[in-house]
Amino acid sequence: MEIITSLQNSKIKELNKLNEKKYRDESNMFLIEGDHLVEEAYNKNQLVEILITPDFENKFDITTTIISEEVMKKLSNMKSPSKIIGVCKKFNPLSYGNRLILLDNLQDPGNLGTIIRSAASFNFDTVILGDTCVDLYNDKVIRASEGMIFNIDVKRCNLINFVQELKDNNYIVYATDVNGGSTLSDTPFDKKMAIIIGSEGSGVSNELKRLIDANIYIPMNKKCESLNAAVAASIIMYEVSKIDYE
Amino acid sequence: MEIITSLQNSKIKELNKLNEKKYRDESNMFLIEGDHLVEEAYNKNQLVEILITPDFENKFDITTTIISEEVMKKLSNMKSPSKIIGVCKKFNPLSYGNRLILLDNLQDPGNLGTIIRSAASFNFDTVILGDTCVDLYNDKVIRASEGMIFNIDVKRCNLINFVQELKDNNYIVYATDVNGGSTLSDTPFDKKMAIIIGSEGSGVSNELKRLIDANIYIPMNKKCESLNAAVAASIIMYEVSKIDYE
Repeated sequence: MEIITSLQNSKIKELNKLNEKKYRDESNMFLIEGDHLVEEAYNKNQLVEILITPDFENKFDITTTIISEEVMKKLSNMKSPSKIIGVCKKFNPLSYGNRLILLDNLQDPGNLGTIIRSAASFNFDTVILGDTCVDLYNDKVIRASEGMIFNIDVKRCNLINFVQELKDNNYIVYATDVNGGSTLSDTPFDKKMAIIIGSEGSGVSNELKRLIDANIYIPMNKKCESLNAAVAASIIMYEVSKIDYE
Repeated sequence: MEIITSLQNSKIKELNKLNEKKYRDESNMFLIEGDHLVEEAYNKNQLVEILITPDFENKFDITTTIISEEVMKKLSNMKSPSKIIGVCKKFNPLSYGNRLILLDNLQDPGNLGTIIRSAASFNFDTVILGDTCVDLYNDKVIRASEGMIFNIDVKRCNLINFVQELKDNNYIVYATDVNGGSTLSDTPFDKKMAIIIGSEGSGVSNELKRLIDANIYIPMNKKCESLNAAVAASIIMYEVSKIDYE
């Protein structure tokens, strides 16, 4: 059994670059960590190869490299590194469904991962990531998604062009507005719907605002200006998930 | 105008200790950063003094120390330090209201801050923090709360004893259960209610589970095991906030 023990090993140095967005963009690859995430990636056919420590009980039928714990520590982003890291290929779907959540300039990786997790939970079809959002393949995003990044399509694109396309195809475009709009639980959501969530700091951009068909209001105490972006997105998706179309 | 410029200044060294939980516990004081938070603390009468950089336009009528930007950088937890830091006194309320959210061993500071923000938004009376939860005065908690830590009472205590006290006083104790229970939107919540949210890793502890009166289920896709703890808490509080008692 050959074990890579050198931190200077060329394969390890190459893979470690995937901890930076620049190299993930160039290679279209990214790293994931831990048994649970690797299994989700494997089932979704996005896993390319794995790296494991000698004591890991391997059940995955895929190209495998054994590495020392020191090497694992170098590749890992966790305080307590796990025993397995997976190398995955990115996937940007071409098509999309009827229930869409659109994220405009969202910056917090925890929020993005949490929204992906909620979108999968509440049966949304596709998460649409504006091209100024935080990187989908940031390790914090992937961890916060709890593996759901492999269970719902996430499509990255220019939101202005995309929302125009949606409107040409008879989607209704919704957004939250703290200043008013129709109360969330009374909103008659269309079957083909796109809900825009704005950035943590400044909400929906002005360019996108012009394209919104309806504003939604989540009733709340006046002393609060707004909810956390992931919470607002999740509450809306929760309400939408109650609707049953024929 | 006297300006503290030395990082070795004894007052600065003392205050900097408040960035560690141990010293916050000893002194019953904590630091907050930025205009918005300081204003909330001031309005709630929890502000003791402030430290500002020379260019800060001070509107607060309170003991003020002027410090150099370098000293501010030492005290700050932010990449881009703000121009004002506030020293606050802790507050642990004795009484509590009818709508309570109880947090059992919650560990993520972002989740705690987000739940406090949602609890204030959805008109809960008190957040009850189990004594094994993450420290309320962690700077990440305070930032994630968006100042709502000063707009809703947060009481720290032993949850087992507290839930016993609640039951003696005819509160109904609810918790989420991914395996079943009554569907959230059909749950007849009592006027005197306590909702327990479990830890991110392992849910509600077994000792507390025995004290639960009713389990709530948030309907979701089977491929997801659970929601993020702050999202689950917020969705439940959102549903409860729709109820109007006479």
